Amino acid sequence: MIEEFLSSKATKTETALSEYLARRTEIPQTLRAAMEYSLFAGGKRLRPALALGAAELISGNDGDALPAACALEMIHTYSLIHDDLPSMDNDDLRRGKPTSHKVYGEAIAILAGDALLTLAFETAADCGDAAVMREIANAAGAEGMVGGQVIDLESENLKLGVPQLRNLHAKKTGALIRVAVRVGAMAASANSEQLDALTRYGESIGLAFQIADDILDVVGDQNAIGKPVGSDASNNKSTYPAAVGLDGARKLADDAVADAVTALELFGPEADTFRALARYIIERDR
Amino acid sequence: MIEEFLSSKATKTETALSEYLARRTEIPQTLRAAMEYSLFAGGKRLRPALALGAAELISGNDGDALPAACALEMIHTYSLIHDDLPSMDNDDLRRGKPTSHKVYGEAIAILAGDALLTLAFETAADCGDAAVMREIANAAGAEGMVGGQVIDLESENLKLGVPQLRNLHAKKTGALIRVAVRVGAMAASANSEQLDALTRYGESIGLAFQIADDILDVVGDQNAIGKPVGSDASNNKSTYPAAVGLDGARKLADDAVADAVTALELFGPEADTFRALARYIIERDR
Repeated sequence: MIEEFLSSKATKTETALSEYLARRTEIPQTLRAAMEYSLFAGGKRLRPALALGAAELISGNDGDALPAACALEMIHTYSLIHDDLPSMDNDDLRRGKPTSHKVYGEAIAILAGDALLTLAFETAADCGDAAVMREIANAAGAEGMVGGQVIDLESENLKLGVPQLRNLHAKKTGALIRVAVRVGAMAASANSEQLDALTRYGESIGLAFQIADDILDVVGDQNAIGKPVGSDASNNKSTYPAAVGLDGARKLADDAVADAVTALELFGPEADTFRALARYIIERDR
Repeated sequence: MIEEFLSSKATKTETALSEYLARRTEIPQTLRAAMEYSLFAGGKRLRPALALGAAELISGNDGDALPAACALEMIHTYSLIHDDLPSMDNDDLRRGKPTSHKVYGEAIAILAGDALLTLAFETAADCGDAAVMREIANAAGAEGMVGGQVIDLESENLKLGVPQLRNLHAKKTGALIRVAVRVGAMAASANSEQLDALTRYGESIGLAFQIADDILDVVGDQNAIGKPVGSDASNNKSTYPAAVGLDGARKLADDAVADAVTALELFGPEADTFRALARYIIERDR
């Protein structure tokens, strides 16, 4: 059931992403190729699925959330391109393929990231709602994802405890997951009680997602995560398993999923897909 | 008169920029320092002055254009940080000061640029108008400024003629100048005749600005432009003086200014400041 949900939202997102790019006829050829290379590199489209699923949960219709959903995937993709750069994480592979700067060179990789970030806001404007765009910008920016990347760089070779890990990941990966659920709900005109509940859900699955990612890096196989197992440890990155052990990390992930499921109470059985999605996030590693 | 106009708009812009940054209390310290270093490095604030001046011309009041004006200055600043990077123009100095990556390192410079670009859209959202945000994103993105930077990189060591130079600069520097005038007018609820006239004005001064910049690079003094004289030639960049000679370039700049002044006809004497601004742009080098 959850695979079907994810794949139907991914198809819808990819069709719309293609259309958004095709509509921009004035993009120089090399730049377009680099943007498409990373945007269509086979991501799970989790953030769009969250935005579309939240809208569907509120109004029964996900169409109004599609521009914001595509914007979030563009922002996620740009962040991966820039994170992989030699001066950042210096990764040669992403999802099993050469990273953007390996294929196009550093200058074009930086500019493809810049272009995707900018196109995200042009795309989100189709929602016609400046408040949705403000939320996305805040989550993606200096107080959110970019700020988290700075903290991450500054934390290399430090041994972070759970509160510091939580703050780092709430910004670096959590903010975009949280805002995905929120803008989906906003696009479907959620009331404030619904928006609060979905915000809590988004925060909890963002946390669960990161813990699961850290666990996968220790126990997973390279094909499932698209990068070498143990790369966090070899990059001297702090992880939940390093901070609290593997069992401790699994317990934290279970707790976060339980919080996510609890947050959905007011929606009744309509929210079963989102409940299953919360569990799915931590089951990738088992 | 024109110096007074520019300095009063610059003061207003800088005050607002400081407030926008101060309001974001969750920005990590290093990131904030890098953002402020480049944002307050003494730019002329030409784009904000154009946005504020256009709004004032339409409605007598520039307040509604202030968020968009600040957004444009953030985007301009991010573009300078990324353009200066080692993999792009590899510049050590900007406005007579060490470039961002020289002070903060490449990773933080890239992220400070990303953060300023993102904060631009969060800031522009204060206009409350998704259409204004869409215009800004289009001008700054793959079909505008970022696309122009890609064309610029790909044109190194090529000898461009006037039509190709025009296309390159219409994107790389022209799009942001054009949109500055447009969003100022839109924020002040310009009608379509006014918007068309100001768009033509913006396109013409954008062209004049670039030609003047190329001329300054040949004949100017280093203090006036903040980078070594002749750096375009030593970077193998095509310029208007190289394409049509120094006198030919001055003629093209004069023609562009005349077009800009003509475009303002319908506004009468109210537009004298903008007429003076068009002339001022090409007189920097004389």
